[in-house]
Amino acid sequence: MNIYDISKKAGVSIATVSRVLNGSENVSEKTRKKVLAVMKETGYTPNVFARGLTNNTIQTIGLLCADCSDHFLATAISYLERGFRANGYDCILCCTGYELSIRQKYLRLILSKKVDAIVLVGSTFIENHPSDNQYLIDAALQVPVFCINGFLDTENFYCTLCDDAGAVRSAAIKLFDDGFTKPLFLYRSASYSGRQKERGFLNALEILGLSAEPNQILCMNTSIDATKSALAAHYQQFAFDCVIAGDDELAVSAHKFAKAQEFRIPDEFSIIGYNNSKVAVCCEPELSTIDNRLEYICGNTVENVMNIFNGQAVPNKTMVSACFIRRGTTK
Amino acid sequence: MNIYDISKKAGVSIATVSRVLNGSENVSEKTRKKVLAVMKETGYTPNVFARGLTNNTIQTIGLLCADCSDHFLATAISYLERGFRANGYDCILCCTGYELSIRQKYLRLILSKKVDAIVLVGSTFIENHPSDNQYLIDAALQVPVFCINGFLDTENFYCTLCDDAGAVRSAAIKLFDDGFTKPLFLYRSASYSGRQKERGFLNALEILGLSAEPNQILCMNTSIDATKSALAAHYQQFAFDCVIAGDDELAVSAHKFAKAQEFRIPDEFSIIGYNNSKVAVCCEPELSTIDNRLEYICGNTVENVMNIFNGQAVPNKTMVSACFIRRGTTK
Repeated sequence: MNIYDISKKAGVSIATVSRVLNGSENVSEKTRKKVLAVMKETGYTPNVFARGLTNNTIQTIGLLCADCSDHFLATAISYLERGFRANGYDCILCCTGYELSIRQKYLRLILSKKVDAIVLVGSTFIENHPSDNQYLIDAALQVPVFCINGFLDTENFYCTLCDDAGAVRSAAIKLFDDGFTKPLFLYRSASYSGRQKERGFLNALEILGLSAEPNQILCMNTSIDATKSALAAHYQQFAFDCVIAGDDELAVSAHKFAKAQEFRIPDEFSIIGYNNSKVAVCCEPELSTIDNRLEYICGNTVENVMNIFNGQAVPNKTMVSACFIRRGTTK
Repeated sequence: MNIYDISKKAGVSIATVSRVLNGSENVSEKTRKKVLAVMKETGYTPNVFARGLTNNTIQTIGLLCADCSDHFLATAISYLERGFRANGYDCILCCTGYELSIRQKYLRLILSKKVDAIVLVGSTFIENHPSDNQYLIDAALQVPVFCINGFLDTENFYCTLCDDAGAVRSAAIKLFDDGFTKPLFLYRSASYSGRQKERGFLNALEILGLSAEPNQILCMNTSIDATKSALAAHYQQFAFDCVIAGDDELAVSAHKFAKAQEFRIPDEFSIIGYNNSKVAVCCEPELSTIDNRLEYICGNTVENVMNIFNGQAVPNKTMVSACFIRRGTTK
């Protein structure tokens, strides 16, 4: 018996059951009585949801991230940790790696700690195949689950994400405007965010009346140097004149490739990175990049968590626009 | 009444009291009885130490780091989190910032969570003035405290650190060997590690029969671009021909300065970074840098924590040698 069963039996939404458990004002007396009656009838014991009711919360948020040695994810964790602490909550951190079975194990583990909510940090948690996300859907029946930069359409699951598709679409159109004709889209993984970026790239081609050429999209998940070498080989297949990269490190590889080929940047060859991270300003000329407004996304997530705890309504999906940062690798 | 008082009253070391509390085999029956008698007499209630005895541990390590959006610290947290998890421990993470009073507050907070041990991630926790470290000394009377890359000589406090002084000394001597005569030492903060690096630099000059010239040591804690501009101004005061930087980002600033001045790297101008981070391979030529073996240091710390929990002896200071990584900015 869980909160989902209670909601079905009482004929109300999970959010309403959650509001009753949190002692929120925003529930009619009639609904409250109905929900409490169902809970009594079924012998349901509220655990972590029951903050207002039983005050037995441990005031702790479970953060799951694939790898906090990834600068982007680490920065997100830093923002989240500070935001939650400012609201009186601790964070338990789990670095899960990228393997599905290990993630499932860690999610069970963190649920067993009776955390008040779970935040999935990074879009790699949302898998392509629906069945691979079932464990997340199940978790959301126990505690509210929040996701940074990924989206899953299920109850009690709240996502704040950057409009990656729109950002890449605009970037690709800009490159055509600047006179380039053979953009390469370079990405690291088919995560939720990676797929959105690819969608944006294809959408730009479509808008321009083009379709993707063979080898116009390349997936690389190796070191900066290995990617640089791979690009030199790939150039033989598809002679690209500009690169849109899924992250700044991939963009640095493209930068190194262009320098090695003695292409003039940005006149003969343009590069656009993603994330606006520190590596973007380490090369010369510095990388033009897309800032996906991580600080705002994390702040919004903390706010959403607190709103859910207070029984307020929160949208399942909050979308933020990215900012293009023009530096030396674009006209 | 704390573990320190017990150890004084029983006339044994804190480590011995800890071993008794942990139910370790490595204590004579006589000593065990004496310690338990003192504990009974004084009404001492063991809390977090009492793992073996009462089994009421929460199996959680408190990690304190100044700022996990700092790539070096985030990488350390990633290694530590995985190491502790492999041993069945969770990590609670606190990002404390750099202000002493805020740190003291967070340390109190994390102690109130009854964590089994505390790991201070980064040398910025060890202050120059002894009185500013009193709160750490006090904390170590309640739980074992471990420190990554900083050293404090007090009971129940265990440090694993890189020989930063030795690494910078070798780097400086190498630059003189390569024919340079005016090295600038560029560092970010007077943290424990920052002070060791400076000591190594001065030591190298001493070995070579030199003494530091005015303006030969520069502290900068700003963005990559701001440091680059500051170096151009500083060059008017002290015409340096090579730079040893306290971290790779500072080294990138020096790299940008040298490029702007059109100095030929590494023939006319050499640069050595520190940390062997990703930014070191983002510039062209890539940075020679010092790898302070963070993974090893973190692994050793996890091992030390587990040994303390098991009542085994652990040295107060474990020193690791750094590795010089030669890339394009040195001969």
